[in-house]
Amino acid sequence: MKIAILGGTGNEGFGLGFRWAVAGHEIIIGSRLAEKGASAAAEMLAKLPAGTSVSGTDNLSATQQAEVVVLSVPYSAQEKTLETVKEALAGKLLVTVVVPLGEKAARVWRLPSGLSAAEEAQAQIGDSARVVAAFQNISAHHLTDLTHGIDCDVLICGEKGTDKELVAQLCADAGMRGVNAGPLANASVVEGLTAVLIGINIRHKIKNAGIRITGISHQG
Amino acid sequence: MKIAILGGTGNEGFGLGFRWAVAGHEIIIGSRLAEKGASAAAEMLAKLPAGTSVSGTDNLSATQQAEVVVLSVPYSAQEKTLETVKEALAGKLLVTVVVPLGEKAARVWRLPSGLSAAEEAQAQIGDSARVVAAFQNISAHHLTDLTHGIDCDVLICGEKGTDKELVAQLCADAGMRGVNAGPLANASVVEGLTAVLIGINIRHKIKNAGIRITGISHQG
Repeated sequence: MKIAILGGTGNEGFGLGFRWAVAGHEIIIGSRLAEKGASAAAEMLAKLPAGTSVSGTDNLSATQQAEVVVLSVPYSAQEKTLETVKEALAGKLLVTVVVPLGEKAARVWRLPSGLSAAEEAQAQIGDSARVVAAFQNISAHHLTDLTHGIDCDVLICGEKGTDKELVAQLCADAGMRGVNAGPLANASVVEGLTAVLIGINIRHKIKNAGIRITGISHQG
Repeated sequence: MKIAILGGTGNEGFGLGFRWAVAGHEIIIGSRLAEKGASAAAEMLAKLPAGTSVSGTDNLSATQQAEVVVLSVPYSAQEKTLETVKEALAGKLLVTVVVPLGEKAARVWRLPSGLSAAEEAQAQIGDSARVVAAFQNISAHHLTDLTHGIDCDVLICGEKGTDKELVAQLCADAGMRGVNAGPLANASVVEGLTAVLIGINIRHKIKNAGIRITGISHQG
Protein backbone atom coordinates (compact mmCIF):
# COMPACT_ATOMS: atom_id res chain seq x y z
CA MET A 1 0.00 0.00 0.00
CA LYS A 2 1.18 3.55 -0.65
CA ILE A 3 1.33 5.30 2.70
CA ALA A 4 2.11 9.00 3.13
CA ILE A 5 3.30 10.04 6.57
CA LEU A 6 2.78 13.76 7.13
CA GLY A 7 5.29 14.81 9.76
CA GLY A 8 7.21 11.62 9.03
CA THR A 9 10.43 13.35 10.07
CA GLY A 10 9.35 13.13 13.74
CA ASN A 11 10.14 10.08 15.88
CA GLU A 12 6.66 8.55 15.88
CA GLY A 13 5.93 8.92 12.17
CA PHE A 14 9.48 7.91 11.27
CA GLY A 15 9.27 4.80 13.42
CA LEU A 16 5.90 3.70 12.02
CA GLY A 17 7.11 4.33 8.45
CA PHE A 18 10.21 2.28 9.14
CA ARG A 19 8.17 -0.72 10.29
CA TRP A 20 5.72 -0.44 7.40
CA ALA A 21 8.56 -0.20 4.89
CA VAL A 22 10.00 -3.43 6.31
CA ALA A 23 6.55 -5.00 5.88
CA GLY A 24 6.64 -4.14 2.18
CA HIS A 25 4.57 -0.95 2.01
CA GLU A 26 5.62 1.99 -0.12
CA ILE A 27 6.37 4.89 2.22
CA ILE A 28 6.28 8.56 1.26
CA ILE A 29 7.57 10.81 4.03
CA GLY A 30 5.94 14.21 3.98
CA SER A 31 7.31 17.32 5.63
CA ARG A 32 6.60 21.04 5.52
CA LEU A 33 9.71 21.35 3.37
CA ALA A 34 10.37 18.82 0.58
CA GLU A 35 14.13 18.79 1.39
CA LYS A 36 13.44 17.70 4.96
CA GLY A 37 11.16 14.92 3.72
CA ALA A 38 13.82 13.74 1.27
CA SER A 39 16.52 13.82 3.91
CA ALA A 40 14.42 11.77 6.36
CA ALA A 41 13.75 9.27 3.56
CA ALA A 42 17.50 8.91 2.92
CA GLU A 43 18.06 8.37 6.64
CA MET A 44 15.34 5.72 6.73
CA LEU A 45 16.63 3.91 3.66
CA ALA A 46 20.09 3.71 5.22
CA LYS A 47 18.60 1.74 8.13
CA LEU A 48 16.49 -0.55 5.94
CA PRO A 49 17.26 -3.76 4.07
CA ALA A 50 17.53 -3.52 0.27
CA GLY A 51 14.33 -3.68 -1.75
CA THR A 52 12.25 -1.38 0.44
CA SER A 53 10.56 1.66 -1.02
CA VAL A 54 10.84 5.00 0.76
CA SER A 55 10.78 8.51 -0.67
CA GLY A 56 10.36 11.96 0.83
CA THR A 57 8.77 15.18 -0.31
CA ASP A 58 6.45 17.94 0.92
CA ASN A 59 3.17 17.12 2.68
CA LEU A 60 0.97 17.97 -0.29
CA SER A 61 2.90 15.88 -2.83
CA ALA A 62 3.05 13.01 -0.34
CA THR A 63 -0.73 13.14 0.12
CA GLN A 64 -1.34 13.22 -3.63
CA GLN A 65 0.73 10.08 -4.17
CA ALA A 66 -0.74 8.00 -1.35
CA GLU A 67 -3.74 5.75 -0.74
CA VAL A 68 -3.55 6.09 3.03
CA VAL A 69 -2.37 9.28 4.72
CA VAL A 70 -0.99 9.24 8.25
CA LEU A 71 -1.04 12.52 10.18
CA SER A 72 1.86 12.56 12.63
CA VAL A 73 2.52 16.21 13.40
CA PRO A 74 2.48 18.05 16.75
CA TYR A 75 -1.07 19.13 17.63
CA SER A 76 -0.01 22.76 17.19
CA ALA A 77 0.65 22.06 13.49
CA GLN A 78 -2.46 19.95 12.85
CA GLU A 79 -4.79 22.64 11.53
CA LYS A 80 -2.22 24.24 9.24
CA THR A 81 -1.04 20.90 7.85
CA LEU A 82 -4.59 19.74 7.11
CA GLU A 83 -5.37 23.04 5.40
CA THR A 84 -2.44 22.38 3.04
CA VAL A 85 -3.55 18.87 2.07
CA LYS A 86 -7.33 19.11 2.47
CA GLU A 87 -8.22 18.97 -1.23
CA ALA A 88 -5.77 16.16 -1.95
CA LEU A 89 -7.24 14.02 0.85
CA ALA A 90 -10.53 13.50 -0.99
CA GLY A 91 -11.50 9.83 -1.04
CA LYS A 92 -8.48 8.74 1.01
CA LEU A 93 -8.25 7.43 4.53
CA LEU A 94 -6.65 9.76 7.08
CA VAL A 95 -5.10 7.96 10.05
CA THR A 96 -4.31 10.45 12.79
CA VAL A 97 -1.64 9.77 15.39
CA VAL A 98 -1.87 13.28 16.85
CA VAL A 99 -2.02 13.75 20.62
CA PRO A 100 -2.82 17.16 22.10
CA LEU A 101 -0.67 17.75 25.17
CA GLY A 102 -0.81 20.81 27.38
CA GLU A 103 2.06 22.51 29.18
CA LYS A 104 2.18 19.68 31.68
CA ALA A 105 2.34 16.68 29.39
CA ALA A 106 1.42 14.25 32.17
CA ARG A 107 -1.84 16.05 32.91
CA VAL A 108 -4.78 15.32 30.62
CA TRP A 109 -5.48 18.41 28.53
CA ARG A 110 -8.95 19.35 27.37
CA LEU A 111 -9.10 21.15 24.06
CA PRO A 112 -11.10 24.41 24.06
CA SER A 113 -13.44 22.85 21.46
CA GLY A 114 -14.39 20.08 23.90
CA LEU A 115 -13.50 17.60 21.15
CA SER A 116 -10.62 15.24 20.55
CA ALA A 117 -7.91 16.28 18.09
CA ALA A 118 -9.20 13.50 15.82
CA GLU A 119 -12.73 14.91 15.79
CA GLU A 120 -11.34 18.39 15.11
CA ALA A 121 -9.47 16.92 12.13
CA GLN A 122 -12.65 15.30 10.82
CA ALA A 123 -14.61 18.54 11.26
CA GLN A 124 -11.93 20.46 9.39
CA ILE A 125 -11.64 18.17 6.37
CA GLY A 126 -15.39 17.53 6.14
CA ASP A 127 -16.99 14.63 4.34
CA SER A 128 -14.46 14.16 1.59
CA ALA A 129 -12.24 11.83 3.63
CA ARG A 130 -12.74 9.71 6.72
CA VAL A 131 -10.58 9.97 9.82
CA VAL A 132 -9.45 7.05 11.94
CA ALA A 133 -7.49 7.64 15.17
CA ALA A 134 -4.75 5.14 16.05
CA PHE A 135 -1.21 4.69 17.46
CA GLN A 136 -1.63 7.52 20.04
CA ASN A 137 -0.36 5.32 22.87
CA ILE A 138 2.64 3.80 21.10
CA SER A 139 5.99 4.99 22.38
CA ALA A 140 8.36 5.82 19.52
CA HIS A 141 11.21 4.48 21.62
CA HIS A 142 11.62 1.02 20.10
CA LEU A 143 9.88 1.44 16.74
CA THR A 144 13.08 1.51 14.71
CA ASP A 145 14.56 -1.44 16.59
CA LEU A 146 13.01 -4.59 15.14
CA THR A 147 14.61 -6.78 17.81
CA HIS A 148 12.23 -5.14 20.30
CA GLY A 149 8.58 -6.12 20.35
CA ILE A 150 6.10 -3.33 21.07
CA ASP A 151 4.33 -4.26 24.31
CA CYS A 152 1.30 -2.07 23.68
CA ASP A 153 -2.05 -2.52 21.93
CA VAL A 154 -3.29 0.06 19.44
CA LEU A 155 -6.75 1.43 20.21
CA ILE A 156 -8.49 2.26 16.93
CA CYS A 157 -11.37 4.76 16.85
CA GLY A 158 -13.45 5.56 13.78
CA GLU A 159 -16.92 5.44 12.35
CA LYS A 160 -16.59 2.63 9.79
CA GLY A 161 -15.65 -0.94 10.58
CA THR A 162 -13.91 -1.48 7.25
CA ASP A 163 -11.63 1.53 7.84
CA LYS A 164 -10.74 0.17 11.27
CA GLU A 165 -10.03 -3.27 9.82
CA LEU A 166 -7.60 -1.71 7.36
CA VAL A 167 -5.86 0.13 10.20
CA ALA A 168 -5.80 -3.09 12.27
CA GLN A 169 -3.90 -4.68 9.38
CA LEU A 170 -1.42 -1.77 9.46
CA CYS A 171 -1.01 -2.44 13.19
CA ALA A 172 -0.28 -6.09 12.50
CA ASP A 173 2.19 -5.12 9.77
CA ALA A 174 4.04 -3.02 12.35
CA GLY A 175 4.06 -5.87 14.88
CA MET A 176 1.19 -4.65 17.05
CA ARG A 177 -2.34 -5.70 17.87
CA GLY A 178 -5.07 -3.27 16.87
CA VAL A 179 -8.27 -3.22 18.94
CA ASN A 180 -11.51 -1.59 17.80
CA ALA A 181 -12.14 1.08 20.44
CA GLY A 182 -15.41 2.43 19.09
CA PRO A 183 -16.47 5.64 17.35
CA LEU A 184 -14.21 8.59 16.64
CA ALA A 185 -15.56 10.42 19.73
CA ASN A 186 -13.79 7.80 21.85
CA ALA A 187 -10.46 9.17 20.60
CA SER A 188 -10.66 11.72 23.42
CA VAL A 189 -9.96 8.89 25.85
CA VAL A 190 -7.17 7.40 23.76
CA GLU A 191 -5.50 10.80 23.31
CA GLY A 192 -5.82 11.51 27.04
CA LEU A 193 -4.38 8.11 27.87
CA THR A 194 -1.11 9.27 26.35
CA ALA A 195 -0.85 11.92 29.06
CA VAL A 196 -1.46 9.23 31.68
CA LEU A 197 1.28 7.05 30.14
CA ILE A 198 3.71 10.00 30.01
CA GLY A 199 3.10 10.50 33.73
CA ILE A 200 3.80 6.82 34.36
CA ASN A 201 7.01 7.09 32.29
CA ILE A 202 8.14 10.05 34.42
CA ARG A 203 7.31 8.38 37.75
CA HIS A 204 8.94 5.08 36.77
CA LYS A 205 11.90 6.62 34.89
CA ILE A 206 11.08 4.59 31.77
CA LYS A 207 10.28 5.53 28.18
CA ASN A 208 7.78 2.97 27.02
CA ALA A 209 4.81 2.54 29.33
CA GLY A 210 1.94 1.14 27.29
CA ILE A 211 -1.41 -0.57 27.64
CA ARG A 212 -2.79 -3.99 26.88
CA ILE A 213 -6.45 -4.84 26.60
CA THR A 214 -7.12 -8.00 28.62
CA GLY A 215 -9.97 -10.48 28.36
CA ILE A 216 -9.84 -10.74 24.56
CA SER A 217 -7.75 -13.38 22.92
CA HIS A 218 -7.76 -12.28 19.32
CA GLN A 219 -7.52 -9.20 17.19
CA GLY A 220 -10.32 -6.84 16.91
CA MET B 1 -9.57 -0.46 58.18
CA LYS B 2 -13.21 0.62 58.49
CA ILE B 3 -14.50 1.03 54.95
CA ALA B 4 -17.97 2.36 54.12
CA ILE B 5 -19.26 1.50 50.67
CA LEU B 6 -22.02 3.90 49.62
CA GLY B 7 -24.10 2.07 47.07
CA GLY B 8 -22.59 -1.18 48.30
CA THR B 9 -25.75 -3.02 47.28
CA GLY B 10 -24.71 -2.71 43.59
CA ASN B 11 -22.51 -5.30 41.91
CA GLU B 12 -19.29 -3.26 41.85
CA GLY B 13 -19.43 -1.99 45.43
CA PHE B 14 -20.63 -5.36 46.70
CA GLY B 15 -17.79 -7.16 44.92
CA LEU B 16 -15.10 -4.80 46.24
CA GLY B 17 -16.54 -5.02 49.76
CA PHE B 18 -16.52 -8.79 49.55
CA ARG B 19 -12.82 -8.88 48.64
CA TRP B 20 -11.88 -6.34 51.31
CA ALA B 21 -13.83 -8.26 53.95
CA VAL B 22 -11.86 -11.38 53.04
CA ALA B 23 -8.67 -9.34 53.43
CA GLY B 24 -9.69 -8.49 57.01
CA HIS B 25 -11.18 -5.00 56.63
CA GLU B 26 -14.35 -3.98 58.44
CA ILE B 27 -17.01 -3.32 55.82
CA ILE B 28 -20.06 -1.10 56.30
CA ILE B 29 -22.45 -1.30 53.37
CA GLY B 30 -24.37 1.91 52.89
CA SER B 31 -27.60 2.29 50.98
CA ARG B 32 -30.28 4.91 50.57
CA LEU B 33 -32.41 2.77 52.86
CA ALA B 34 -30.89 1.21 55.98
CA GLU B 35 -32.88 -2.02 55.45
CA LYS B 36 -31.38 -2.50 52.00
CA GLY B 37 -27.88 -1.98 53.40
CA ALA B 38 -28.55 -4.51 56.17
CA SER B 39 -29.96 -7.04 53.73
CA ALA B 40 -26.91 -6.74 51.42
CA ALA B 41 -24.65 -7.20 54.47
CA ALA B 42 -26.49 -10.40 55.39
CA GLU B 43 -26.11 -11.63 51.81
CA MET B 44 -22.39 -10.85 51.84
CA LEU B 45 -21.82 -12.52 55.22
CA ALA B 46 -23.49 -15.68 53.93
CA LYS B 47 -20.82 -15.89 51.19
CA LEU B 48 -17.90 -15.12 53.49
CA PRO B 49 -15.80 -17.30 55.81
CA ALA B 50 -16.40 -16.92 59.55
CA GLY B 51 -14.60 -14.10 61.35
CA THR B 52 -15.20 -11.39 58.77
CA SER B 53 -16.88 -8.15 59.71
CA VAL B 54 -19.69 -6.78 57.56
CA SER B 55 -22.64 -4.62 58.52
CA GLY B 56 -25.18 -2.58 56.59
CA THR B 57 -27.03 0.65 57.19
CA ASP B 58 -27.94 3.92 55.48
CA ASN B 59 -25.31 5.95 53.63
CA LEU B 60 -24.99 8.63 56.32
CA SER B 61 -24.50 6.20 59.22
CA ALA B 62 -22.04 4.20 57.12
CA THR B 63 -20.01 7.33 56.39
CA GLN B 64 -20.00 8.37 60.05
CA GLN B 65 -18.59 4.99 61.13
CA ALA B 66 -15.85 4.70 58.48
CA GLU B 67 -12.28 5.90 57.97
CA VAL B 68 -12.41 5.45 54.20
CA VAL B 69 -15.60 6.01 52.22
CA VAL B 70 -16.09 4.39 48.81
CA LEU B 71 -18.65 6.00 46.49
CA SER B 72 -20.14 3.32 44.26
CA VAL B 73 -23.48 4.67 43.07
CA PRO B 74 -24.74 5.30 39.53
CA TYR B 75 -23.63 8.71 38.30
CA SER B 76 -27.24 9.87 38.35
CA ALA B 77 -27.26 9.40 42.15
CA GLN B 78 -23.83 10.90 42.84
CA GLU B 79 -24.85 14.46 43.67
CA LYS B 80 -27.75 13.50 45.90
CA THR B 81 -25.74 10.86 47.76
CA LEU B 82 -22.85 13.25 48.40
CA GLU B 83 -25.26 15.91 49.64
CA THR B 84 -26.51 13.44 52.24
CA VAL B 85 -23.06 12.55 53.57
CA LYS B 86 -21.12 15.77 52.90
CA GLU B 87 -20.74 16.89 56.53
CA ALA B 88 -19.84 13.42 57.74
CA LEU B 89 -17.06 13.10 55.14
CA ALA B 90 -14.91 15.77 56.81
CA GLY B 91 -11.34 14.57 57.25
CA LYS B 92 -11.99 11.23 55.55
CA LEU B 93 -10.80 9.87 52.23
CA LEU B 94 -13.45 9.51 49.53
CA VAL B 95 -12.63 6.88 46.93
CA THR B 96 -14.94 7.24 43.96
CA VAL B 97 -15.68 4.35 41.64
CA VAL B 98 -18.37 6.29 39.74
CA VAL B 99 -18.44 6.19 35.95
CA PRO B 100 -20.71 8.53 34.01
CA LEU B 101 -22.19 6.70 31.03
CA GLY B 102 -24.50 8.22 28.45
CA GLU B 103 -27.38 6.56 26.65
CA LYS B 104 -24.93 4.61 24.53
CA ALA B 105 -22.69 3.11 27.19
CA ALA B 106 -19.99 2.20 24.68
CA ARG B 107 -19.60 5.79 23.50
CA VAL B 108 -17.51 8.11 25.67
CA TRP B 109 -19.82 10.62 27.31
CA ARG B 110 -18.76 14.15 28.11
CA LEU B 111 -20.39 15.67 31.14
CA PRO B 112 -21.96 19.11 30.61
CA SER B 113 -19.54 20.51 33.22
CA GLY B 114 -16.58 19.48 31.08
CA LEU B 115 -15.18 17.75 34.18
CA SER B 116 -14.88 14.14 35.25
CA ALA B 117 -17.40 12.76 37.75
CA ALA B 118 -14.53 12.58 40.25
CA GLU B 119 -13.76 16.28 39.87
CA GLU B 120 -17.44 17.11 40.20
CA ALA B 121 -17.47 15.13 43.45
CA GLN B 122 -14.46 17.05 44.76
CA ALA B 123 -16.01 20.38 43.77
CA GLN B 124 -19.22 19.45 45.57
CA ILE B 125 -17.69 18.33 48.87
CA GLY B 126 -15.08 21.10 48.91
CA ASP B 127 -11.90 21.06 50.97
CA SER B 128 -13.10 19.05 53.93
CA ALA B 129 -12.29 15.70 52.32
CA ARG B 130 -10.03 14.57 49.50
CA VAL B 131 -11.26 12.55 46.54
CA VAL B 132 -9.32 9.74 44.87
CA ALA B 133 -10.69 8.04 41.73
CA ALA B 134 -10.08 4.30 41.35
CA PHE B 135 -11.59 0.96 40.24
CA GLN B 136 -13.54 2.53 37.32
CA ASN B 137 -12.23 -0.07 34.87
CA ILE B 138 -12.77 -3.17 37.01
CA SER B 139 -15.53 -5.45 35.82
CA ALA B 140 -17.74 -6.59 38.71
CA HIS B 141 -18.08 -9.94 36.97
CA HIS B 142 -15.55 -11.99 38.95
CA LEU B 143 -15.13 -9.89 42.11
CA THR B 144 -17.11 -12.27 44.32
CA ASP B 145 -15.36 -15.35 42.93
CA LEU B 146 -11.99 -15.59 44.64
CA THR B 147 -10.89 -18.45 42.38
CA HIS B 148 -10.76 -15.90 39.55
CA GLY B 149 -7.89 -13.43 39.38
CA ILE B 150 -8.79 -9.93 38.15
CA ASP B 151 -6.81 -9.37 34.95
CA CYS B 152 -6.99 -5.58 35.09
CA ASP B 153 -4.86 -2.84 36.65
CA VAL B 154 -6.46 -0.10 38.72
CA LEU B 155 -5.61 3.42 37.55
CA ILE B 156 -5.55 5.73 40.58
CA CYS B 157 -6.03 9.49 40.17
CA GLY B 158 -5.73 12.02 42.96
CA GLU B 159 -3.80 15.01 44.18
CA LYS B 160 -1.82 13.51 47.08
CA GLY B 161 0.67 10.67 46.79
CA THR B 162 -0.08 9.37 50.28
CA ASP B 163 -3.80 9.05 49.47
CA LYS B 164 -2.95 7.14 46.31
CA GLU B 165 -0.59 4.84 48.22
CA LEU B 166 -3.40 3.99 50.63
CA VAL B 167 -5.70 3.20 47.70
CA ALA B 168 -2.95 1.13 46.04
CA GLN B 169 -2.88 -0.94 49.23
CA LEU B 170 -6.66 -1.42 48.95
CA CYS B 171 -6.08 -2.59 45.37
CA ALA B 172 -3.51 -5.11 46.56
CA ASP B 173 -5.87 -6.28 49.32
CA ALA B 174 -8.48 -6.98 46.63
CA GLY B 175 -5.96 -8.87 44.46
CA MET B 176 -5.23 -6.10 41.97
CA ARG B 177 -2.34 -3.84 41.05
CA GLY B 178 -2.89 -0.12 41.56
CA VAL B 179 -1.01 2.29 39.29
CA ASN B 180 -0.63 6.01 40.01
CA ALA B 181 -2.31 7.66 37.01
CA GLY B 182 -1.68 11.27 37.98
CA PRO B 183 -3.87 14.12 39.22
CA LEU B 184 -7.63 13.96 39.71
CA ALA B 185 -8.18 15.69 36.35
CA ASN B 186 -6.86 12.53 34.67
CA ALA B 187 -9.92 10.68 35.97
CA SER B 188 -11.75 11.89 32.85
CA VAL B 189 -9.64 9.46 30.85
CA VAL B 190 -10.09 6.60 33.28
CA GLU B 191 -13.86 7.12 33.41
CA GLY B 192 -14.04 7.32 29.62
CA LEU B 193 -11.96 4.17 29.30
CA THR B 194 -14.85 2.27 30.89
CA ALA B 195 -17.02 3.18 27.89
CA VAL B 196 -14.27 1.88 25.59
CA LEU B 197 -14.09 -1.38 27.56
CA ILE B 198 -17.89 -1.76 27.49
CA GLY B 199 -17.72 -1.45 23.70
CA ILE B 200 -15.03 -4.12 23.58
CA ASN B 201 -17.18 -6.37 25.81
CA ILE B 202 -20.10 -5.95 23.43
CA ARG B 203 -18.05 -6.59 20.28
CA HIS B 204 -16.30 -9.63 21.75
CA LYS B 205 -19.34 -11.00 23.64
CA ILE B 206 -17.42 -11.04 26.91
CA LYS B 207 -17.98 -9.42 30.31
CA ASN B 208 -14.55 -8.60 31.61
CA ALA B 209 -12.38 -6.67 29.16
CA GLY B 210 -9.74 -4.81 31.16
CA ILE B 211 -6.45 -3.01 30.82
CA ARG B 212 -2.90 -3.64 31.89
CA ILE B 213 -0.18 -1.05 32.03
CA THR B 214 2.94 -2.47 30.38
CA GLY B 215 6.56 -1.44 30.77
CA ILE B 216 6.44 -1.24 34.57
CA SER B 217 7.34 -4.22 36.66
CA HIS B 218 6.22 -3.18 40.10
CA GLN B 219 3.38 -1.44 41.84
CA GLY B 220 2.81 2.14 41.57
